[in-house]
Amino acid sequence: MDTLSELHKGYSSVIDITVAWGEMDAAQHLNNVVYIRYMESGRVALFSEWDFMGFDSSIGPILSEVRCWYKAPVTFPDTIRVATRVAHGSIHEYGFELQHLMISHQKQRIVAEGYSGVVSYDYATLRKAPLPEWLIQKINEQPEQ
Amino acid sequence: MDTLSELHKGYSSVIDITVAWGEMDAAQHLNNVVYIRYMESGRVALFSEWDFMGFDSSIGPILSEVRCWYKAPVTFPDTIRVATRVAHGSIHEYGFELQHLMISHQKQRIVAEGYSGVVSYDYATLRKAPLPEWLIQKINEQPEQ
Amino acid sequence: MDTLSELHKGYSSVIDITVAWGEMDAAQHLNNVVYIRYMESGRVALFSEWDFMGFDSSIGPILSEVRCWYKAPVTFPDTIRVATRVAHGSIHEYGFELQHLMISHQKQRIVAEGYSGVVSYDYATLRKAPLPEWLIQKINEQPEQ
Amino acid sequence: MDTLSELHKGYSSVIDITVAWGEMDAAQHLNNVVYIRYMESGRVALFSEWDFMGFDSSIGPILSEVRCWYKAPVTFPDTIRVATRVAHGSIHEYGFELQHLMISHQKQRIVAEGYSGVVSYDYATLRKAPLPEWLIQKINEQPEQ
Repeated sequence: MDTLSELHKGYSSVIDITVAWGEMDAAQHLNNVVYIRYMESGRVALFSEWDFMGFDSSIGPILSEVRCWYKAPVTFPDTIRVATRVAHGSIHEYGFELQHLMISHQKQRIVAEGYSGVVSYDYATLRKAPLPEWLIQKINEQPEQ
Repeated sequence: MDTLSELHKGYSSVIDITVAWGEMDAAQHLNNVVYIRYMESGRVALFSEWDFMGFDSSIGPILSEVRCWYKAPVTFPDTIRVATRVAHGSIHEYGFELQHLMISHQKQRIVAEGYSGVVSYDYATLRKAPLPEWLIQKINEQPEQ
Repeated sequence: MDTLSELHKGYSSVIDITVAWGEMDAAQHLNNVVYIRYMESGRVALFSEWDFMGFDSSIGPILSEVRCWYKAPVTFPDTIRVATRVAHGSIHEYGFELQHLMISHQKQRIVAEGYSGVVSYDYATLRKAPLPEWLIQKINEQPEQ
Repeated sequence: MDTLSELHKGYSSVIDITVAWGEMDAAQHLNNVVYIRYMESGRVALFSEWDFMGFDSSIGPILSEVRCWYKAPVTFPDTIRVATRVAHGSIHEYGFELQHLMISHQKQRIVAEGYSGVVSYDYATLRKAPLPEWLIQKINEQPEQ
């Protein structure tokens, strides 16, 4: 297992995102806002694996909260690995929390960590809805890598 | 008539956009991509005035082309005036061209110019459609300020 | 005092941001990432008022953490008022927390709330640095509106 | 040679960019602005290959103009190949034009084409500068793939 994989051991969903030069800001680092976009891409990757995008059925995810800790600056060129998993013990009737790691290929270290609060939402009735049974089952089968 | 208004004389639609600090890039100027977002906001403002957004009917605008000349760098803080009009003589059966000026309040000068190619599109049949008569009439009534 | 001002009573720094059409995503609401950009603009406005941007001296702010709760969807057209203040009791030797309210002019209600963790950073030595005395004094003079 | 490579035959610089879900707008397609960001990444990739970023010396590139034709909508998930080359016959004393193709992996077709006007700029004197000899030589050696 390489260093990067060691760093996100136990995370079920992993994507790599190439940093764009234009995502740096006037401080000449990756802008703080871009990490939140990367977390979004991590969420969407996991929801796509689960087939829980809300396109095929009326029940889909809605974002209630994001939180991000910035640990180290990122500069172009770099590739950021975003590892995402359901936070242990976070499932409740109407949702769950995702935990994200952002890891720099250049630095071989964690550059940011984050959480996403996710709520199950009925796009037909425009109200929160209990998590579907099939999804709870999928989450519980989440591999410990 | 103040200097700014002098600069966009003859432009029918005008909006002011506050530059965000985070829209500057590592070269410490407004990033080139952001001007294209400002042109989009200029188009949408004009289409909203015309009630030609494609939400109420099946015919709406689609963007076929953008072009932008960068004339002077922009830095935070600044406000950019985006002035938009239909380019003279550009109307054809299926569309028209918009002409945009971007003017810095700080510098009191034009910092960029652009064009947008716009095509009339039938979102029901997914094909280009002749410009609606009512819209041609509106465009022809466009005030020369 | 109008409704909007009532909603952000006690917040010392206030800016208005016009929502761009292109900031909506495929869910046809303001994208979650954009609120974080708005919070950044709120921080920069406050730091500019304080003259604490790190451009004139070697000591400036660095962002350690952001957190945002999404309360209600936002759609174009709208204007978002971002109200920012130092969170009560949050000042410590090396930084403080900012508290943000985002309020929709259209809806006349709070659509999101957030926090920013800010650390005082010495850009010469690339280390965190104690908050300058003059800044602590400015923060303590922050008006209760 | 696969279909994608056939499509960008003769282009010396090629990168692949993963479309982010959040880059779609309320029309549920890749937002027009994002293509300009992709072109920027194509330029930066080529300038990096050339070692012409303006970081190591005072002479670097500056963008004078962009132009983009939108040929087909792009939706998430997709990967866009951006192929970039110096436009034949475009070199002049102070700059050149780049030609960009954007190709969808999903659709196996060109979804957009663009141009970038690039000027050689002396960041020490803040004036345009003749293209360095070594760069003209590199451009002339550009492989016809």
